[in-house]
Parts: sequence; structure tokens; C-alpha cells
Amino acid sequence: MKSYREMTREELAREEQNLIKAFDAEKAKGLSINMARGKPSTAQLDLSNDMLDVINSKSDFCSEKGSDCRNYGDIAGIDEAKRLMGDMVGVPWENVMVYGNASLSIMYDFVSRSMLKGVLGSTPWCQLDHVKFLCPVPGYDRHFGITEYFGIEMVNIPMTPTGPDMDKVEELVNNDSAVKGIWCVPKYSNPQGITYSDDTVRRFASLKPAADDFRIYWDNAYAVHHLYDDQQDELLDILGACEEAGNPDMVYEFFSTSKITFAGSGLSGMAASQKNLDEIRHQMNVRIISYDKMNMLRHARYLVNLDGVKAKMAQHAKIMRPKFDTVVNTLNRDLKSLDIASWIEPHGGYFVAFEAMDGCATAIIQLAKEAGITLTPAGAPFPYHKDPRDSVIRIAPSLPPVPDLQAAMDVFTLCVRLATVRKLQEK
Amino acid sequence: MKSYREMTREELAREEQNLIKAFDAEKAKGLSINMARGKPSTAQLDLSNDMLDVINSKSDFCSEKGSDCRNYGDIAGIDEAKRLMGDMVGVPWENVMVYGNASLSIMYDFVSRSMLKGVLGSTPWCQLDHVKFLCPVPGYDRHFGITEYFGIEMVNIPMTPTGPDMDKVEELVNNDSAVKGIWCVPKYSNPQGITYSDDTVRRFASLKPAADDFRIYWDNAYAVHHLYDDQQDELLDILGACEEAGNPDMVYEFFSTSKITFAGSGLSGMAASQKNLDEIRHQMNVRIISYDKMNMLRHARYLVNLDGVKAKMAQHAKIMRPKFDTVVNTLNRDLKSLDIASWIEPHGGYFVAFEAMDGCATAIIQLAKEAGITLTPAGAPFPYHKDPRDSVIRIAPSLPPVPDLQAAMDVFTLCVRLATVRKLQEK
Repeated sequence: MKSYREMTREELAREEQNLIKAFDAEKAKGLSINMARGKPSTAQLDLSNDMLDVINSKSDFCSEKGSDCRNYGDIAGIDEAKRLMGDMVGVPWENVMVYGNASLSIMYDFVSRSMLKGVLGSTPWCQLDHVKFLCPVPGYDRHFGITEYFGIEMVNIPMTPTGPDMDKVEELVNNDSAVKGIWCVPKYSNPQGITYSDDTVRRFASLKPAADDFRIYWDNAYAVHHLYDDQQDELLDILGACEEAGNPDMVYEFFSTSKITFAGSGLSGMAASQKNLDEIRHQMNVRIISYDKMNMLRHARYLVNLDGVKAKMAQHAKIMRPKFDTVVNTLNRDLKSLDIASWIEPHGGYFVAFEAMDGCATAIIQLAKEAGITLTPAGAPFPYHKDPRDSVIRIAPSLPPVPDLQAAMDVFTLCVRLATVRKLQEK
Repeated sequence: MKSYREMTREELAREEQNLIKAFDAEKAKGLSINMARGKPSTAQLDLSNDMLDVINSKSDFCSEKGSDCRNYGDIAGIDEAKRLMGDMVGVPWENVMVYGNASLSIMYDFVSRSMLKGVLGSTPWCQLDHVKFLCPVPGYDRHFGITEYFGIEMVNIPMTPTGPDMDKVEELVNNDSAVKGIWCVPKYSNPQGITYSDDTVRRFASLKPAADDFRIYWDNAYAVHHLYDDQQDELLDILGACEEAGNPDMVYEFFSTSKITFAGSGLSGMAASQKNLDEIRHQMNVRIISYDKMNMLRHARYLVNLDGVKAKMAQHAKIMRPKFDTVVNTLNRDLKSLDIASWIEPHGGYFVAFEAMDGCATAIIQLAKEAGITLTPAGAPFPYHKDPRDSVIRIAPSLPPVPDLQAAMDVFTLCVRLATVRKLQEK
């Protein structure tokens, strides 16, 4: 098909009429399909049902160290859960603490603590006039939600195929003492599926922050969430890299099993240097007696070790692969030759980031909504919900079954074409 | 036996020599018994093992409203869990939100949020020069730990047999706008086992706080934790009382199943007015996607309703009663006639508060430690760990089996006598 950019006004108008007819036909189908959030499908949840049998009334409730997991105690988690999660992200278990079911809460809590108590003795951020976080964009809306809630100024950092624009990161972190943090999803990033290159990780580790209390918020949410057996991204261990670079305390790493076992009933955890952990433990002691060790025991006995995790993730990939293929194949089929959009084909994670022509994202999402397809709102993957170019759409293919997803993607590409053809006529 | 207060110096010296001999004999036994914390015993934990079979791989994972409890969603908890917990404390389920395994974390989070964001639009507390919390004493050490961590000034309020000294509470709350909260354990209070009278609750509900953002932190931790069938304390519903008094937003109520099912793997929850809940939900949306709904489902299906809870608590009482009897009987046997200490015989809860002669608590606890008995540190039930009279000792009888507890209490009363006889000789 002819590229829209080469069409005359008349051709565009004719194309619009054709697209409207097709769109009305889709609308008439009364579809209702949700691609808004990275929610696992029922089939994926079913993969871990057996975990529920691992702990029952006849079980031994003792951790390997001998504490009764039903009772209070072991504030930082049981060793077997620390080991499991440490292995997952490639950090020593001694640097790991295991929490409840939500890594987002850990991150919220860390920002909240830094606001009120500072970081390793620094001035509490709430007493400072300016506190800034760097936000590689597009990124994870819930990260930005935390910093927005606390009134922290967010600074957009462009993403590149190897990670955030490190020239910008270095310039800002190394010179502006108001910069206290950066949000990172370093592997299979949300929403682009980009994995930071070794060079990017090393440049992160070698930052010379103007602020002593600057921390990298390293949300390694998709550490083992590969789509393919033969194309698996590798991410350098940031904790090790920071230690090597003489910056052992500069990073907090977060992770969870939300997309390994049950989205709502998994384990979350974090890793950091011992000096950071001491501060974290001190606060933890104030806010909780211990996290749910029964769920830790359940996970540790079910997944056993990294091999168990990998086996489970291979089962997930089997379900996820056809969904990602559906998204990417439909985009390629319907849009490639039109030269009006771009997208990255990820090797893992939960999303496909679609980049429309500038000024089209809101219109596309609105059209899709009219036809019964719910997409992540335009602007969501940006601080303050503002996509400066109104072009990025996050596609989350995990929840709908493949036939629904195909139907939704058919509508989606139609919406992209219709919105774009209209935009081009405005010029 | 003759009261120590009536003894001559010589008699006291002779008594001390006798006690030292007895104490040395106890020390030689090499006991190691922990009565420091309100930790349920293994027998109590065993009461709920069946709960682990209620949810297994063959279960229906849907909440009554139809959401898959394995997945994300239902941020404020599933209805059946809200109902169960609301019934437990006598508040409508619409006012309830269900959280993770620790009510302490909810309370921490509420204080933290108020510090940074204020309460319903008030100035964030971190921007104020003075923020005060009233602390009925003796009280729960972990409450005081939260306010201490955030640098909130704590003001001691004496406890009476009907609750906190309400004249003092009214005077301070109604006249000092720096007073932003009060910590309460209104039923079977920690550590005295006192239940606030209806009059006390009504006076609480009728406060006219100088500060709009004053809140009662009503930690109803022992709502159903009775020891006897025939002597059960009743607590007036504070939410209802506050609404009646025209102060619907003045209270946050907290509760949990930690001492109903598993101490480390229960549910926690809170109740408040809809206006408060709206603010809380807004923040909740920033910090979490949803709490562990599988554990909610497990609890709701296992305990079913208030009758189920009551039946479970009757089983706990059967185990706890002999322990409390052991404590109280030994105190009566060894100390009553000596006129050197007092204690309250509680109808429920987890503790016995022992009041020694002024200036003796630290010495008693130190002696007990030498003989292998671990008690809650002196001062722990007070803000800043400072018991102004050094007289209160919190006894936690739940963990040791009765024979151990008897051995520990035999040592304890010996330590009380020895420390007191020494104190009396100082005069």
C-alpha cells in the first residue's frame, strides 16, 4: 500500500471515507476488549495453582532455619525466599529482603521514608525546596505516580535502544544536587521492552552524583520474563557494578514474583548494600513485625530455585508468545508500508510500545474506545500524564485470549490509520 | 506473711538473705523462658492449620463478586473479607478496607501520610513546628515507636480502670492544636487488659479538637479476644458514637486477625468514615495495586462469619485461660499479702500489667534475666522507653507452656520480692 505521507489531499480524503466505513463496521460488532494493563491471563494464573497445595494443614511450617512461619518473626524474610529471589536477579541473598505482595509498596515506602528521614543521614527531602527525579520516557506510570504524589519534580529523559540517554543522565545527576533519584525498568522495560546495555549499566554505576542521597531506583520487574528460548536479553548486575565502581550504596533494586506465580499474591523483594539495608531494617522495625512468611515458604518450596523459576517462565512464554506475535504481526501487516508509526519487537516483558505520528495518540485511543477496545490512556507512560508529542501508546497483550487480541488489533490498526489520515489532512 | 512495709530493717535484711538463697537456687536451674512478647503459642497456631486446606489447586478462586483473587484488582479488599472484619469489630462493611498481614503497617502508613500530606487538606505535619500525640500509659510500645520515629512529641496520659484520664484528654485535645492524635487500645488494652467504659467512648466521640486534623487512632486489636465465657467486656462502637456526636471523621479504627488465625499471616484492616476512606483510597492507589486477596479468600471461607470467629476465639481461650490463671494465681499466692505491688486480672487480651513498687521494675527485670526469664524491657510500655516511676512490667503469658510459665512466675515473684526488699532498705 502507498505510504500515507505520499498521498495527495484527495487520496487522503478518499482513504478516510473507506476507513470510516470499515471503522463503523467494527463498531457495530460491539466488542469489549481490555488491553490497558499488564494483567496476566487466567491461563497464566492457572500455571501456579499447584503452589496452593504445597502448604497445607499437614505441612512442616518451619523455615530451613527453624522458625515457625505461622508466627511473628524474621522481619527481613526467611532465607530460602531471599535466596530464591536473589538468584532470580543475580544478587547475593545476604543483600536481599523479602516483603509482601507488592514491590510498588516498597518503592513508595522508600520515597516516603526519604522525604521524611533523608537517606543515610541526609536532609529529609521534605525540607528541601527542590527535589527532582529523572524519568526515562516512556516509562511505568505507577513510578511516576509515586513521585507526583509527593510533589517531586519529574524530568523526562529520552529512551534509546540501549537504555536512557546516559549523556543527559550524567549531566543532570553529576551536576544538580536536587536530583535525588531515577526510575529505571532496566530489563524488558515498561513499555518499550528495551534492555539496558552493559555500557549503560556501567555508566549508571559510575555516576558521580552531586547529591550524596541520590539513588537509582532499579525496578527489575521483568528479570526472567523472556518471550523466546533463543533470544533472551541479558542485564548486567547493577549492585555488583556499583560496588566495583566505588558506589556500593547508590542503588536500590526491586523485584517480585507477581508475574511468575500470582499477580495479586506473590512475593516482592529488594536488594541493596549492607549500609542501605541497615537503614531500611531500622525503619522496617518501626512499621512491621514481619511479612507473610507462609507465602514465602509456599513460594520457596514450590519454585525451589532458579531452575524452577525458569521452567515456570518457559510456560508463561508459551502463552505470551502468540499474543506478542499477534500484536507485532498485525502492526507489520497493516501499518509497515504506510510509514506512519513505529514499534519495537520486544524479547520479553509485558508490553509493546507503539509510536504513532505526533499528535495522534489521544485520537487513536479515543477511536479504539468507541469501538470497545480499552487501551492505556494517552500520556500515561509519561510524568504528569503528558506525552509531549502525543504519540506513544502502550499495548498490553497479556490479558485477552488470542482471538480477542486479534480482533482488538484489527480495530487498533484501523484507528491508527483513521486518526493519521485525519491528522495529515490538517496540515 | 507480714507486709514488707511493716518490717523492721533487721527483718528486711534477714528476708533478703533468705531470698538470695532461693534466687541462687532458681538461677542454678538454668531456665530459659521468654515472656517478652505477645506471641501466640504453637498450640494456638495449630488451631487454624485447617485454614490452609480451604484454598487449594482445585478451589474456585473467585470472590463472591466474581473477581479472580489470584490477579490484580479490588484495591480495598474483597467484600466477604470486609464483612468478616467489619462484623468482628461491629462496623458496617462499607466502612472497612482490608490490607495485608500487619495492622501496624497501616498505622505507620497513616502517620507517615499525615506527616507528608496532612489530613483532608490540612497542613502536612512535617511543616509544623509542633506535632503531639497523646499516649495513654502504660501502652503498646510499637505505637510509641511510630510516633517517636517521626519525631512527634508524645504526651503521657494516665490510664484509669475505665480508660484514659478523659479530663486530661479533653483538656489537651480541645485546647492545643498541636495535638494531632491519640493512641488507643480500647479493649483489653495492651498491657493492662482494661476496656474503655461507654462513658469514656462517648467522651472520646464528643471531643471538640482544636485541630481539624486530630484523629483518634483506635487500635481495636483484641476485639474478640476474651478469656472467659461468662465475663466478656463490651466496647461501644466508636465509629457510630463519633457519627452521632457530629464528629464522623475523627476516628480511624484498626484491627487484624493476627491473634485469631496466624500471627504472621493474617489479615489486617481499618475502618473510617467515607470522607476519610476517599482520602485513604487515593493514597492507596499510589502505593499498591491490591493486597493479597488469596489470603482474604482463605480467611473469609474458613472463618465464614462472626460465629466462626467466636468459635475460634473460644478455642484460643481454652489455651490462654490456664496461662493467665497461672500468672494471676502465682501473683496472688506470693505477693498479695506483702502489699508491695498491684496487678489487674484481665478478662481478655494478651497481657498482665504488673505494677511494682516505684523504682523496682528495672531491677526485677534484671534479676529475672539473670535467672533465665526474659521479660519486656522496663520502660517499653512508655513513650521514649521511660517509665517515670520505673514500676510497670508487662507480662506476656501466651508463648510458654503452662509448666514453663509456672516456673517463670515462681522466679518472677522471687525477683519482685528481692528487688523490693532491697529498695526498702535504701530508704
